[in-house]
Amino acid sequence: MIGRTHECGKLGEEHVGERVQLKGWVQRRRDLGQVIFLDVRDRSGIVQVVFNPEVNQEALTTAERVRNEYVIEVCGNVVARDPKTVNEKIATGSIEVHVEKISILNASKPLPFQIEADTDASEDVRLKYRYLDLRRPDMQETFKLRHRTTKLIRDFLDTETFMEIETPMLTKSTPEGARDYLVPSRVHHGEFYALPQSPQLFKQLLMVSGFERYYQIVRCFRDEDLRADRQPEFTQVDIETSFMDKEDLIAMMEKMMEKILKEIKGVDISLPFPRLTYDEAMNRFGSDKPDLRFGMELIELSEIVKDSEFKVFQSALASGGTVKGLNLKGGADKLSRKEIDALTDYVKQYGAKGLAWLKVEEEGLKGPIAKFFTGEVATSLQEALGAEVGDLLFFGADKKQVVFDSLGALRLKFGKQFDLIDKSQFNFLWVVDFPLVEYDEEAKRYVALHHPFTSPVEEDLALLATDPASVRANAYDLVLNGYELGGGSQRIYQSDIQEQMFKALGFSEEEAREQFGFLLEAFEFGTPPHGGIALGLDRLIMLLAGRTNLRDTIAFPKTASASDLLTNAPGEVSVEQLIDLNLSIIGRKSEKVNV
Amino acid sequence: MIGRTHECGKLGEEHVGERVQLKGWVQRRRDLGQVIFLDVRDRSGIVQVVFNPEVNQEALTTAERVRNEYVIEVCGNVVARDPKTVNEKIATGSIEVHVEKISILNASKPLPFQIEADTDASEDVRLKYRYLDLRRPDMQETFKLRHRTTKLIRDFLDTETFMEIETPMLTKSTPEGARDYLVPSRVHHGEFYALPQSPQLFKQLLMVSGFERYYQIVRCFRDEDLRADRQPEFTQVDIETSFMDKEDLIAMMEKMMEKILKEIKGVDISLPFPRLTYDEAMNRFGSDKPDLRFGMELIELSEIVKDSEFKVFQSALASGGTVKGLNLKGGADKLSRKEIDALTDYVKQYGAKGLAWLKVEEEGLKGPIAKFFTGEVATSLQEALGAEVGDLLFFGADKKQVVFDSLGALRLKFGKQFDLIDKSQFNFLWVVDFPLVEYDEEAKRYVALHHPFTSPVEEDLALLATDPASVRANAYDLVLNGYELGGGSQRIYQSDIQEQMFKALGFSEEEAREQFGFLLEAFEFGTPPHGGIALGLDRLIMLLAGRTNLRDTIAFPKTASASDLLTNAPGEVSVEQLIDLNLSIIGRKSEKVNV
Repeated sequence: MIGRTHECGKLGEEHVGERVQLKGWVQRRRDLGQVIFLDVRDRSGIVQVVFNPEVNQEALTTAERVRNEYVIEVCGNVVARDPKTVNEKIATGSIEVHVEKISILNASKPLPFQIEADTDASEDVRLKYRYLDLRRPDMQETFKLRHRTTKLIRDFLDTETFMEIETPMLTKSTPEGARDYLVPSRVHHGEFYALPQSPQLFKQLLMVSGFERYYQIVRCFRDEDLRADRQPEFTQVDIETSFMDKEDLIAMMEKMMEKILKEIKGVDISLPFPRLTYDEAMNRFGSDKPDLRFGMELIELSEIVKDSEFKVFQSALASGGTVKGLNLKGGADKLSRKEIDALTDYVKQYGAKGLAWLKVEEEGLKGPIAKFFTGEVATSLQEALGAEVGDLLFFGADKKQVVFDSLGALRLKFGKQFDLIDKSQFNFLWVVDFPLVEYDEEAKRYVALHHPFTSPVEEDLALLATDPASVRANAYDLVLNGYELGGGSQRIYQSDIQEQMFKALGFSEEEAREQFGFLLEAFEFGTPPHGGIALGLDRLIMLLAGRTNLRDTIAFPKTASASDLLTNAPGEVSVEQLIDLNLSIIGRKSEKVNV
Repeated sequence: MIGRTHECGKLGEEHVGERVQLKGWVQRRRDLGQVIFLDVRDRSGIVQVVFNPEVNQEALTTAERVRNEYVIEVCGNVVARDPKTVNEKIATGSIEVHVEKISILNASKPLPFQIEADTDASEDVRLKYRYLDLRRPDMQETFKLRHRTTKLIRDFLDTETFMEIETPMLTKSTPEGARDYLVPSRVHHGEFYALPQSPQLFKQLLMVSGFERYYQIVRCFRDEDLRADRQPEFTQVDIETSFMDKEDLIAMMEKMMEKILKEIKGVDISLPFPRLTYDEAMNRFGSDKPDLRFGMELIELSEIVKDSEFKVFQSALASGGTVKGLNLKGGADKLSRKEIDALTDYVKQYGAKGLAWLKVEEEGLKGPIAKFFTGEVATSLQEALGAEVGDLLFFGADKKQVVFDSLGALRLKFGKQFDLIDKSQFNFLWVVDFPLVEYDEEAKRYVALHHPFTSPVEEDLALLATDPASVRANAYDLVLNGYELGGGSQRIYQSDIQEQMFKALGFSEEEAREQFGFLLEAFEFGTPPHGGIALGLDRLIMLLAGRTNLRDTIAFPKTASASDLLTNAPGEVSVEQLIDLNLSIIGRKSEKVNV
């Protein structure tokens, strides 16, 4: 094999007259009988090569056998194209290569779909033939972007004196958080490792070790039922620091994001990022990761409607709930009665029992519940909602969380449906002052909203024993365009506060010791104040690449049922493997494994 | 918390007169009554801070409560030390900080061992308190070296236009190679993922995808019985390229190693690295990863002794084996008869039935078997072995592999025992022309020496069907100081050759399709010629750091029984977790999990 002299996409007029050797894939073939044109593609781009009996008959004969996606090696001279045949669409369009010699390095069967930016192949077919899907130019671009972003993050953190330190993948199952993926031990009968949901414990231990600035771009695992924007294994930019406080860390992350946006997208973003408290984010946008690229805020109406005779509002307020409204500007003409009714089903997914609405017409409010809102109340309602003729008003009345969830979802739905979102924007914000814990109805105890090592805000410390739900966490989530990009917090570093926290979470001292004993013990040997953050790399890449499907940012992703359609993982294993692990399968398939 | 102004280890005479704020751990405390000295340590180093009533009485009072490994914050002035009290042993020894204010950020219990370069704590204690062990300066240095080496590798590969692409951790179990770690699927009843032994299949698929240059620093897993230089999870610098041949790849790797040695160790190494064929390495050093930092080669003696009357030699040769010798120069005085006898037990580990030996004395050869070697045979033996008076000669006579293994091990043992190895050397070499396959007595079939995707040397292709054992692989192992640092090869990229290979390995077409069908199918869609290499990062760091224990290069390593003594992983899991996975434990502990 002779080495190639140039990459296809990098040839230009400056190479005219040079003899070049290229290697790549046949993107397209046009056979004009006496002349054959091939578009040859490598990872740098495409160039046209020409076979013609005046240059070399043997090469032309070989080229007749070539088909799309054959791998070839060609040797020839770079020639300027006739101005009339210049192809403006490709970077190398002003030249072509007149081929003297061609070798077919490998053949290709006809493809299940074409290698083009836009494919109409189904996602299942694309995943089964992922190696072909990855040849498509938009996928190549996404993974170049991923590589460059990753490199930039590493360089930035290296400059900030962070050290990359690797933490274990085979670790211990912990009861908090999501469901663990387990790995049976062969040596330790009946025991299991767990794959990490994050390196949380280890990165805190590294702070106890005095490394001061740790980072890792690391695979994490959650065995959860999957949504479109979740994968069973995902990649996290994991950061932990000692002796840096919340403001130091936030400023550093903003600097990193500024650099990424500038170098990867050529976009200037302004610092510092805005901040919203959790309460404000929920009240105004119904979400702890609000998309601020458009308005349409949720408006508090409880006070205005408290005396109305509409029973739905009354009972919501009577049971401690809230009433909020949303104004779809000019919506009266945009949605039919049928479409409005369908929205009721939509909000029911979020726990709402129904969806009240009103149209604003010249004559006043119209709609099934208009009769309950007349006179001053109607005026106040319209004022509060900034309602004008032609607007469509929606109402949520229920427990606070249900109103947040349903109207928040409705807001996003309208934003997309009516194109209210400026897609060129990269809109960052921090959400702060999260509750430290929330009550889990099922477990009948408080659970940590972030994780049990998140520090309470200092002023709220005393409340931890008496009123945990009102304690704010010293935590900060980074939000980009309505996606949670990452979550950070200052950690509890004093063992007495950590013990109080476990107590608030309903752990007995024994349970806490059993689960986290090594961490509690470590905290007794001189633990520095520390904090950190974890950013979802897959999600960041998705947003930078302007994509909406997380799977397009992962080379070999899994489906919603956590399958790999390419390799057919997971799969059955041999009886010998199960015996080695002292396991048997119960239920449906047990007859297959006679152990 | 006020930010720190300087790192401890970076203070020097240029800071004299400045007011500084430091944060760190108390390395040492000397209480002289009216004056207290603390050595404060952060990750940059150590500085002495002084408490003294003339500067601040309150600070002195607080300092009285401070003990080793407390985390403190101090504020004070940098003062030049009296020339008589300058401490040459530490970088900051010419100055000290006179403290005006101290805050205790956290206390520490007395430590189970001291934070010193040399510790006499057992490895088990060090692993249990790993977070303290990692505070020791030599461990900190090792992980700094690991970070810098990793960064350098990434930068080098980025410059060489490699892209970092991540491959899955939850993948499919394959029957070839080592034992897989399995991960039960909750969604797919009775099915399992496997953790990757390497991203081999995925990196080849990325070549089919046209990425051309891929790299990843990636965790790999092998559920094997562990030796001192193995870990169940280990990190690999994984590289794959298209359109680069063996010489291109070897040259690039040499350039990378040259850069690492230069920048990390300040050592110049000469390129190109020497190469040995597999046969030569085995014959001369009894190893496919020979340590060339010293001589003492194995000497072929079969021809010389073929007519001797020593039955052991005769029967070895008669059954197709070999006789080789090893000369321990001046060994006659170095080893007692008892020690020589003990070596017999040593070589028995490697399958040898015994160990013949001879001393070279003024009067000739002496020892139990001397009577068999007299006259011309004795002379020839001595000549072949370069034997002089005072030397001690050892002989191996058995099947070739047994002779290689036992004398190769003996050679290394002597090299260490008698300090024949220049430890300052970084001795690289390539071992090439490995056999493609070897016969597995247990499985009664050929198995791939590297993996089933390794390309045969082109000239040997025809032998694949008729005499697989004689086919050489287009493979190259990189060896450093007697350790296999990595293995690379050109891959089979033509599906017909891949099918021949599977046939040689005794796979039916159906078995091959079932296990590797997706790869065989991928190869039909225009696969470029490709090859790659994988380097063991942990091992590279171990050698660069001048260490001998692989565990010292991994932040949270596992013991020989694959346990993590810090977190107590693996551990038992709940019955609910097992039910979720449709698993039950068979045998000893099954009564605990009543499913």
